[in-house]
Amino acid sequence: MNHPGFKPGFKDWMAQQQNHAEAALEKALPVSTVVPEILHEAMRYTALGGGKRVRPLLAYAAGELSGAKADTLNAVACALECIHVYSLVHDDMPCMDDDNLRRGKPTVHVKYDEATALLVGDALQTQAFDLLSTPALFADPARQLRAVHVLARASGSRGMAGGQAIDLASVGHQLTREELEHMHLHKTGALIRAAVLLGALAGDVDEPTLEALDRYAKQIGLLFQVVDDVLDAVADTATLGKTAGKDAANHKPTYVSILGLAESKALANEMAQTAIDALANLGEKAERLRELAHYIVSRQF
Amino acid sequence: MNHPGFKPGFKDWMAQQQNHAEAALEKALPVSTVVPEILHEAMRYTALGGGKRVRPLLAYAAGELSGAKADTLNAVACALECIHVYSLVHDDMPCMDDDNLRRGKPTVHVKYDEATALLVGDALQTQAFDLLSTPALFADPARQLRAVHVLARASGSRGMAGGQAIDLASVGHQLTREELEHMHLHKTGALIRAAVLLGALAGDVDEPTLEALDRYAKQIGLLFQVVDDVLDAVADTATLGKTAGKDAANHKPTYVSILGLAESKALANEMAQTAIDALANLGEKAERLRELAHYIVSRQF
Repeated sequence: MNHPGFKPGFKDWMAQQQNHAEAALEKALPVSTVVPEILHEAMRYTALGGGKRVRPLLAYAAGELSGAKADTLNAVACALECIHVYSLVHDDMPCMDDDNLRRGKPTVHVKYDEATALLVGDALQTQAFDLLSTPALFADPARQLRAVHVLARASGSRGMAGGQAIDLASVGHQLTREELEHMHLHKTGALIRAAVLLGALAGDVDEPTLEALDRYAKQIGLLFQVVDDVLDAVADTATLGKTAGKDAANHKPTYVSILGLAESKALANEMAQTAIDALANLGEKAERLRELAHYIVSRQF
Repeated sequence: MNHPGFKPGFKDWMAQQQNHAEAALEKALPVSTVVPEILHEAMRYTALGGGKRVRPLLAYAAGELSGAKADTLNAVACALECIHVYSLVHDDMPCMDDDNLRRGKPTVHVKYDEATALLVGDALQTQAFDLLSTPALFADPARQLRAVHVLARASGSRGMAGGQAIDLASVGHQLTREELEHMHLHKTGALIRAAVLLGALAGDVDEPTLEALDRYAKQIGLLFQVVDDVLDAVADTATLGKTAGKDAANHKPTYVSILGLAESKALANEMAQTAIDALANLGEKAERLRELAHYIVSRQF
């Protein structure tokens, strides 16, 4: 039973925040009775009812540290998830990864059609900026504007979308670990970093704290991809909820293909520790962020 | 020869502002030597060196009225154009209009490939929000945040992207004039309205002025589409710089198919007058907006 002052265990906290993100998204996305109905239905189809909500979890954890308000954090969590989901929808399209399954369901272009998938992704991206620019969402408009700018920089051609382009260009090429890391710092890492920073900006933290959080977040972003590569190599499709083994089948470079399985796992543990070390001066209020690092590294292996 | 106090004629003013928009975009878009090179090259390929820059022109004209600073207006103009160009790149893709020619050049998926076109559109959309959220771009951060919100609302599922979805769903259907107008209010109209409002917000105007500008902008948005439909029906591909007669070939409803050519032209003149009437109380400083209404209605017919 929760009461003021009671701090739930990590798993309970995580389930709570995932529920908050789901409920907030449910409320934030236009309902499917609003014109254009099919577009709104498809946006909800792909964004609701699934996903680990890793970026929202990071934002909630950082927001706990910065003392952000619940409503502000919910909007931040939704904005992050809209960007993430838009990238998945476009990434799954035939001209990109051509994948049929995502989070255990048919992908948007399979369930609807390609044109709808294109527009769903486009509109989800816009929805993120719509939500994050809601008037008076943050106490300080200059800080809110900074959050919008951080999200845009993390998502665009010098962030996530750029990472996708580097990924495309790398198919069939042997990459060094440095090149692979460069790709993932953009493709996955940038938005994960933004998640932590946005959660922090939603409340009140000083610049040294933001810098420590950024060091943490950078490691978490890479860690997340190492773990993903390990899971893609060892898990089956049913466990992943997406097509397993695709990276190897597509001759995509991964940490596992470059370092091998054992060394990839060791690297993941090392990265989690580096992330946790970055929080050394932030005390008890950074505990959820530490727990998240442990959780991500031990996800399913 | 220009000197302080000299007011250039409309054509000269228009050419000046188009040059400002081009120079600002040239500077705002990442250079093609920055990784990922091909993505940045393709973004520049499609965004630079062409286009009528109608949305920038409207923003510059509204900014002249509101006393906005040149640098602020340039960023606003770029943000608007990035959204517009992203929508063209995605709209031209095979799963949408499947068009090979745009502004007299091969479309992005033809010149590069579909995956690149997808990412170019995605990244240009993000670039718009990146530019408009640049710290301290506006004197007042709350006003800047409002501009971001206006742009997002105009571009997303309840604006431009929604209009695309309505358009898709309407192919092969007979629409009433009201249904057609509803579609265009979203597809083209929303961003054109945003252009005028953003130009105004970039400076300093009161709410009644914003409302008058919004009435003007709503008419201009529709007017623009009526003129487009007329041009598509009467002009040839070389004049348009894009494939002519596509709407009829695709059985897309247009003003011309619903109202006929003569009545469409009459409607355009009527809309231009309504737009100009909305500016009645705004005096001399709204002159460029009036001239733009005249220009748009007389574009090429």
